Amino acid sequence: MTTILHLDASARRGRSISRALSQTFVDTWLAASPGDHVIRRDLTIDPPPHVTEEWIAAAFTPSMQRDTAMQAALAWSDAAIDELVAADLIVIGTPMYNYGMPSSLKAWFDQVVRVGRTFSFDLARGDWPLEPLLAGKRLIVLSARGEFGFTSGGPRASWNHLDAHIATCARYLGVADSAIETITVEYQEFGDERHLQSRRDAEARVRALASTLAKA
Amino acid sequence: MTTILHLDASARRGRSISRALSQTFVDTWLAASPGDHVIRRDLTIDPPPHVTEEWIAAAFTPSMQRDTAMQAALAWSDAAIDELVAADLIVIGTPMYNYGMPSSLKAWFDQVVRVGRTFSFDLARGDWPLEPLLAGKRLIVLSARGEFGFTSGGPRASWNHLDAHIATCARYLGVADSAIETITVEYQEFGDERHLQSRRDAEARVRALASTLAKA
Repeated sequence: MTTILHLDASARRGRSISRALSQTFVDTWLAASPGDHVIRRDLTIDPPPHVTEEWIAAAFTPSMQRDTAMQAALAWSDAAIDELVAADLIVIGTPMYNYGMPSSLKAWFDQVVRVGRTFSFDLARGDWPLEPLLAGKRLIVLSARGEFGFTSGGPRASWNHLDAHIATCARYLGVADSAIETITVEYQEFGDERHLQSRRDAEARVRALASTLAKA
Repeated sequence: MTTILHLDASARRGRSISRALSQTFVDTWLAASPGDHVIRRDLTIDPPPHVTEEWIAAAFTPSMQRDTAMQAALAWSDAAIDELVAADLIVIGTPMYNYGMPSSLKAWFDQVVRVGRTFSFDLARGDWPLEPLLAGKRLIVLSARGEFGFTSGGPRASWNHLDAHIATCARYLGVADSAIETITVEYQEFGDERHLQSRRDAEARVRALASTLAKA
């Protein structure tokens, strides 16, 4: 059985393209493999708090020594990490806001990338002291953006601070570079035929990917 | 008279290196030019909310047509934009969290980059419909990071999703690429002589930059 962690970060609910893509992925998967399990984490309905000084102090205190206030500071993080640990496949539906992650998605990463839970830190490793503690997961990034040309060679490639940033953080989710699939809808602000075509293409790719992976 | 907008994003208060750098910058500036004005915005004491569906709907409604709920959805954004508009110089003290902005700093950008206030949108401009409404500001980015080698040619250059992302967003703050100065402390997690040297170098550069600019 596969456990899917289904995240959405769009502030929009009904009209969100990234939410439609992530829901299509999950629905297509479950149609092909009905016994699998989905954990839902909606970052708009339950917004992740920004990391605080109390959070940092608690995270660096051994778990047996944490008092009640420290446990409370880590409660959101604990729940989100438990979901991540349980997942084999992570599906992130996200818009690009101001050329990067929405703050809610960044806050989720800041909550789940945590010493002793998702990475270890050891200066005996020299100049590369951080190592992921999780491994073997797959990540699907389904995103929407208002403009276009954010891939390599495109006119806005140097403004894309979303995809590569997610890939860099993904290693601490237990996801290897080769285990990330990205499907994107562009031209949303233009609302023209290019956008409609981009959306049709993305939807077809999402269905094909979910169907193929679910049967693998 | 120069108006400085002084932002801090570190979750840490007393022990933050980026806060120490930004405070040194402002203190040095005021010593050289005591009549100038500082607007303080602490993103940890007053955390910016994530953008919501209500925020987006209100931002796209003409200001005269906004009801009380819409005005409330934009209240944090309005206050932050008023500060930005008033500023000649923006000083951001920020750590690198998970290879990018802390979620609190990203939330500040998501709150202040707003149609009709900091950018205009017009499809008559073709494929480049967004234009900044502000201009002529200078940005100083003072940051701290646990690891090292994030500049061009360094071993972690491809993991740096902080500096270039801030530069991309800065155009909507009214800051040209050539008007950004970045000073960075590295090696924080190592706590070794390299870190102490990096910190001494950064502090000296911050003092020199503030002193030079304040007298210009």
